[in-house]
Amino acid sequence: MPTLVLLRHGQSQWNLENRFTGWVDVDLTAEGEAQARKGGELIQSAGIELDEAFTSVQTRAIRTCNLALDAARQSFVPVTKDWRLNERHYGGLTGLNKAETAAKHGEAQVTIWRRSYDIPPPELAPGGEYDFSKDRRYAGKDLPSTESLATTLVRVLPYWEAAIAPRLSAGETILVAAHGNSLRAIVKHLFNVPDAEIVHVEIPTGNPLVIELDLGLKPVAVRYLDESRAESLPAIG
Amino acid sequence: MPTLVLLRHGQSQWNLENRFTGWVDVDLTAEGEAQARKGGELIQSAGIELDEAFTSVQTRAIRTCNLALDAARQSFVPVTKDWRLNERHYGGLTGLNKAETAAKHGEAQVTIWRRSYDIPPPELAPGGEYDFSKDRRYAGKDLPSTESLATTLVRVLPYWEAAIAPRLSAGETILVAAHGNSLRAIVKHLFNVPDAEIVHVEIPTGNPLVIELDLGLKPVAVRYLDESRAESLPAIG
Repeated sequence: MPTLVLLRHGQSQWNLENRFTGWVDVDLTAEGEAQARKGGELIQSAGIELDEAFTSVQTRAIRTCNLALDAARQSFVPVTKDWRLNERHYGGLTGLNKAETAAKHGEAQVTIWRRSYDIPPPELAPGGEYDFSKDRRYAGKDLPSTESLATTLVRVLPYWEAAIAPRLSAGETILVAAHGNSLRAIVKHLFNVPDAEIVHVEIPTGNPLVIELDLGLKPVAVRYLDESRAESLPAIG
Repeated sequence: MPTLVLLRHGQSQWNLENRFTGWVDVDLTAEGEAQARKGGELIQSAGIELDEAFTSVQTRAIRTCNLALDAARQSFVPVTKDWRLNERHYGGLTGLNKAETAAKHGEAQVTIWRRSYDIPPPELAPGGEYDFSKDRRYAGKDLPSTESLATTLVRVLPYWEAAIAPRLSAGETILVAAHGNSLRAIVKHLFNVPDAEIVHVEIPTGNPLVIELDLGLKPVAVRYLDESRAESLPAIG
């Protein structure tokens, strides 16, 4: 039966500094690396045999994917990297810490950008420090300059349908190692989570979320592999 | 212009123990990990921008590939894993150390198996500790039960022609992170090394060999990135 394992990357340097990271290619901390290995050990001890893995083009997710596969003793599993699994693009907030952002835009406005479903932050100005169009991994791509969670879904879900869902429909067991908001997009889609609720769904880092699906890709069972850290589970049905 | 970077994996546990490894999925030692990272740092400091990477389905090569890409700050480069880039399959010698093998078969015979071009060791007996047909990464594959260097070429080169050469012909810069003998196969092919000489070509570990090619994939320049450890270079032309 189709099985989907979602793994959110662990701590990065900017998580520590409380800055809006989005598409900035910040690496994992040593703690983040340990979280990824722990996720892989949980996959291994659960007896899960992965057929394929998907991740973003951001280092913190790719390294989480590779470290987890290594720890699961399944390094040989094919890995596909695609920008459409990237974190939400935080536009003009990119690189600011939360206090700087509040001082500049007001606490209430920042809460709206962080917690609303479809209100994006201001666009990222081209030519600045974080002009991703100059990064060769994005060459020739039609890139966003800011994203809400709603517009994040608009680029995640076509990739899901084209690349990941067909493999699940073929009965495979798939790992997606990615980011808080690209994983939210997948969870919202699979569990029909309402717009107002998905922004409150927090997938814990380094704790694989295992979703068993029927052949129509409807969830039939869901669990975290580390049950002691199991936060709220998406409701089935 | 097409550029090929060959990187041989570093020290594994069985290198230390002087055992015939072949297809056994032995991991890198800490020293082997450091060699892979050093290879990646050399790629980065040489300003080489990789378009794609290819590796085997063996953990020591895959981890070398990933560690090198991480150290080169190019984790996002697509990686393809294929068994046809595996190390030479040592058949019935698999798992034996060099002293055990000499005691069992005689020193002269062992030298013939190690240093001849086309004489394979005895076949690996099915059902033993090293029956790779039970390993799911090889499911459905038509596997060898032993290999000479000559028969290693017979499975490496069709993969080279089908998967790697077309990317080079398109002008890409390609990393192949693999094993002593699968890399020998590629070097023999590109440089027309005679049968009697290729068994003496030793590609050093963790020292990227950069081969610049013309559009017909003839080598036009070749160098090791760590020149202080540059062993013999294949002769051009």
